[in-house]
Amino acid sequence: MTVPQIDPFHTISLSTVAHRLASEGRSIIHMEFGQPSTGAPEAAIARAHHVLDTDPMGYWESQPLRERIARHYMEQYGVTVSPERIVLTSGASPALLLALTSCFIPGARVALARPGYVAYRNTLRTLHMEPVEIVCGETERFQLTAALIDALEPPPEGLIVASPANPTGTVLSDPELAAIVAVCRRKKIRIVSDEIYHGLTFGEPAHSVLEYDQSAMVVNSFSKYFSMAPWRLGWLVAAEDRVDAVQARVGNLFLPPSSLSQHAGLVAFDCREELDEHVKTYKRNRDLLLAALPRWGLRHIAPPDGAFYIYADIGHLTGDSLTFCIRLLRDTGVATAPGVDFDPVEGRHFMRFSFAVSTALIEEAIRRMTPWFTAREKDAGS
Amino acid sequence: MTVPQIDPFHTISLSTVAHRLASEGRSIIHMEFGQPSTGAPEAAIARAHHVLDTDPMGYWESQPLRERIARHYMEQYGVTVSPERIVLTSGASPALLLALTSCFIPGARVALARPGYVAYRNTLRTLHMEPVEIVCGETERFQLTAALIDALEPPPEGLIVASPANPTGTVLSDPELAAIVAVCRRKKIRIVSDEIYHGLTFGEPAHSVLEYDQSAMVVNSFSKYFSMAPWRLGWLVAAEDRVDAVQARVGNLFLPPSSLSQHAGLVAFDCREELDEHVKTYKRNRDLLLAALPRWGLRHIAPPDGAFYIYADIGHLTGDSLTFCIRLLRDTGVATAPGVDFDPVEGRHFMRFSFAVSTALIEEAIRRMTPWFTAREKDAGS
Repeated sequence: MTVPQIDPFHTISLSTVAHRLASEGRSIIHMEFGQPSTGAPEAAIARAHHVLDTDPMGYWESQPLRERIARHYMEQYGVTVSPERIVLTSGASPALLLALTSCFIPGARVALARPGYVAYRNTLRTLHMEPVEIVCGETERFQLTAALIDALEPPPEGLIVASPANPTGTVLSDPELAAIVAVCRRKKIRIVSDEIYHGLTFGEPAHSVLEYDQSAMVVNSFSKYFSMAPWRLGWLVAAEDRVDAVQARVGNLFLPPSSLSQHAGLVAFDCREELDEHVKTYKRNRDLLLAALPRWGLRHIAPPDGAFYIYADIGHLTGDSLTFCIRLLRDTGVATAPGVDFDPVEGRHFMRFSFAVSTALIEEAIRRMTPWFTAREKDAGS
Repeated sequence: MTVPQIDPFHTISLSTVAHRLASEGRSIIHMEFGQPSTGAPEAAIARAHHVLDTDPMGYWESQPLRERIARHYMEQYGVTVSPERIVLTSGASPALLLALTSCFIPGARVALARPGYVAYRNTLRTLHMEPVEIVCGETERFQLTAALIDALEPPPEGLIVASPANPTGTVLSDPELAAIVAVCRRKKIRIVSDEIYHGLTFGEPAHSVLEYDQSAMVVNSFSKYFSMAPWRLGWLVAAEDRVDAVQARVGNLFLPPSSLSQHAGLVAFDCREELDEHVKTYKRNRDLLLAALPRWGLRHIAPPDGAFYIYADIGHLTGDSLTFCIRLLRDTGVATAPGVDFDPVEGRHFMRFSFAVSTALIEEAIRRMTPWFTAREKDAGS
């Protein structure tokens, strides 16, 4: 056994090229990363100013914030969660690491959808756990199904669920989520649910796995709906039987997140009106892209019910999505993400558009990409 | 193999009692945690205000900050470190986790001093690595020695070095550090050096292990000298052969630290004058305590050459340091840390005073503790 090799994010290298082009004077539209281009809510920023001026601050875990998050589960999902189960972290990533190390040991098999967020696989590998990839294609709307999980032999010890998902934006329906929980309960599979795109849905709101399963570990953050990615604030809802294990780990492995971010995060819960405007922008952006893509010949996409992504099959145009996306960037100044970051196999012929920018930028991006894709399409068809 | 049980920090429960007493109106002096009571440098706070008003910010790793930290190694230690080796993290704790997972695998034996910072042991156990404790008593000034490391059979794969150390404040002398590196080189032991108390020394400045060993992994942060604990900003200097492994892990496991903290941290490097005043305060506080402790009968202490701790033997007064510290808190309102958090064996008859508060508070704490310890001493002597 050696220290496992972890693949780097290809999108980061693509983004580095994008920033170099920008520094050379090129106009670049950033659609490569999954982060809002908007800032934190105004009231949250005002609170941060106030705290900077009045409070030297110490290591600190905000009990009011833990209570506010616990209340959120009642308000949003009708689920009782005690504040003691809420563990504050520097973004969702450490919350995932806490969940995994508190539930599983090296060698444990943990299932997850492919395509999916590459950090799931890489975090599992770093912890010497075994990612069991479930291939989810267009017929499954690129999402997990109860049947696919039930078919795993032997059953895995854990399952990572993500709805809305990255890179697809696809949401699990209420009955499908219930069916997945039922299979996992029957087979004693512990669910880790990544719910960081909750609040960003364009139809029905997404359901929390906690509505069905109190033994699940739930990861969430202020990076997406709350538009506070650079504040690095997230949380874990620990299952009751894992609270002590998680609390002991967070004190040793991480300590609490930024005090300033905790202060600002508490205020952000009262800024729904401002934040819901961002969701309206994303919906507008999505609709514009959904109208444009078929005109470019991109007809096989996952249904983007939430998040701010469209994952599109470009197999008729390329078998090397990284080179394709870099060429798109160099030719048009539009930065996107190659599918290989989400699916090392099929991802070679997929790409992800992140539309968490302003509608004006989406319109400009469409103006630039239309002739480019049309030319590619013509080449491919000829 | 099961998910390992990790001990909680006892000092956290003691601190909870302290905060409850404060909320009941008691005057409490907080000497239990290792964090400055001062805020961030003025200019760093001004920068944060500016960034809040002007920059919505995204996930971002500050290249200027990486370059500034790299330059610090040349200025402070005369060592060339390329900015590519600097990895920014949300405090020192994730940097330690990155260092360990990038160098060692489950089952690896990693040596460390006892007494020591409990999170080393607990992080190793969470990662299923084996902490090999080296008992460092009063004769070794509670610090590692080359001879103690050389005597380990079989040699461990890794060694955690901390100088100035927590809970003792003891600094490794230049020749001893060189001798430790020589043993580790001979026996192929990878060093992870925790240098977060650098800058906080009262005699000779501490030496970085990088002056002797470029294959070491070095952890540092803005929490101590820079007085920015609640900003959660730290860094890892990766060994050249581990840069790729660390970079791949940080992108998956953590993402960058708070953007605001990175902006403020860069400015903090230019605030030496303000920060050195804090060090003068700590030196004054240390001298006051060093004068008081023998009067209380506490004559066996580690030499506090740095950090802001005094680790004192209270074996003639108690065999249960936790109960002892809680009684001290209830009787006098002075919160301290029981030795059991740093040494599960000998720590039962040690306690740690953290003197990172104002001199006025130290004077008040001494006023309160003097009659209390005198009474205990009398009981013990009778």
